Amino acid sequence: MKLYTYYRSSAAYRVRIALRLKGLAHEQAFVHLRKGEQSVPSYRALNPQGVVPTLEADGAVIGQSLAILEYLEETRPRPPLLPDDWAGRARVRQLALTIACEIHPLNNLKVLNHLATECKLDEAQRKLWYHHWVGEGFRALEGLLAEHPATGRFCHGDRPGLADICLVPQVYNARRFQVDLALYPTIRQIEAACLALPAFTEAAPEQQPDAE
Amino acid sequence: MKLYTYYRSSAAYRVRIALRLKGLAHEQAFVHLRKGEQSVPSYRALNPQGVVPTLEADGAVIGQSLAILEYLEETRPRPPLLPDDWAGRARVRQLALTIACEIHPLNNLKVLNHLATECKLDEAQRKLWYHHWVGEGFRALEGLLAEHPATGRFCHGDRPGLADICLVPQVYNARRFQVDLALYPTIRQIEAACLALPAFTEAAPEQQPDAE
Repeated sequence: MKLYTYYRSSAAYRVRIALRLKGLAHEQAFVHLRKGEQSVPSYRALNPQGVVPTLEADGAVIGQSLAILEYLEETRPRPPLLPDDWAGRARVRQLALTIACEIHPLNNLKVLNHLATECKLDEAQRKLWYHHWVGEGFRALEGLLAEHPATGRFCHGDRPGLADICLVPQVYNARRFQVDLALYPTIRQIEAACLALPAFTEAAPEQQPDAE
Repeated sequence: MKLYTYYRSSAAYRVRIALRLKGLAHEQAFVHLRKGEQSVPSYRALNPQGVVPTLEADGAVIGQSLAILEYLEETRPRPPLLPDDWAGRARVRQLALTIACEIHPLNNLKVLNHLATECKLDEAQRKLWYHHWVGEGFRALEGLLAEHPATGRFCHGDRPGLADICLVPQVYNARRFQVDLALYPTIRQIEAACLALPAFTEAAPEQQPDAE
């Protein structure tokens, strides 16, 4: 199993956590996004979209972090990243997708770069943009978490899973952009519970061999 | 089963297709996004994020279209929306997520509104923004589809599934914004195959009771 990753990619960070939670041995290949290594033909052949992560496993090449996580769950089910019951799985996927489809896509490196170079937004305007979408997303997440009886030490019960795997990189990213997290006590509690686990801390950007 | 929908929402459109492909009877409730009905307390109680779609089913309330589609697949497996093999499922999810996480989030109504009101981009600039992200996403999708032996009449083989369900609303949306689709022959062929099926045409925005 081989993971193509970049230390600062939130999507790669998700997969790094999952591989560790499941205890899966793997090689890593580093794709330096700021140097444009995602656009070289050898990488585009694996991932026509030119994004990280990509996972090579069992003879297949899989892109999109949530597709990789579902694949790992199907082929290496223990320990599970999803609950046993369909209602729980639907809830966990909703939480994960709220991050993956509503917050992260608006705030990643390529979008912030585009806002600077094509839309001519200055740094202060880009920060406002970032804070707006994280704020909207985190308010929704805090609501989904704080008011639900299934929330436990983690997003769903007392075992880390798919939603936590998406949450921790997004919170990490928000801290980098000085988002005030005081409004989101449940999110912070869950983050703290995750960061007590080596699978999460070892997957953090600054712990990666390609960190700068 | 009750679907909260808005005729022009691409995410709701995905669920409308899936319910029809699976032949599932359901009620509909209409949430008028341009009138702000997604923000009234009664709807926020169901969906704290204030987005459509939401599905009420089996005593649960599920948000996020892909979480709903996975839920339908788990609880009403026939006809399937995902292939039987894990490699096929990973590929189909990758295609669906390329649309749901990389194209659609950058181009939906709330983002286009924000670009106008907060970022002061004029209509021409917003159209450039729209075309940029659809172009980048469709080039990647065309690559993933055109060069892969598993692509058939539909995104994966000769049966419509999760990826087609995401593709058709995105292509519909792109046509509204005058995106030139000539560069994407495989996408257009698959769209045509889908639009030969009543499940897709009946789910189209202009066919909905709340269409204006």
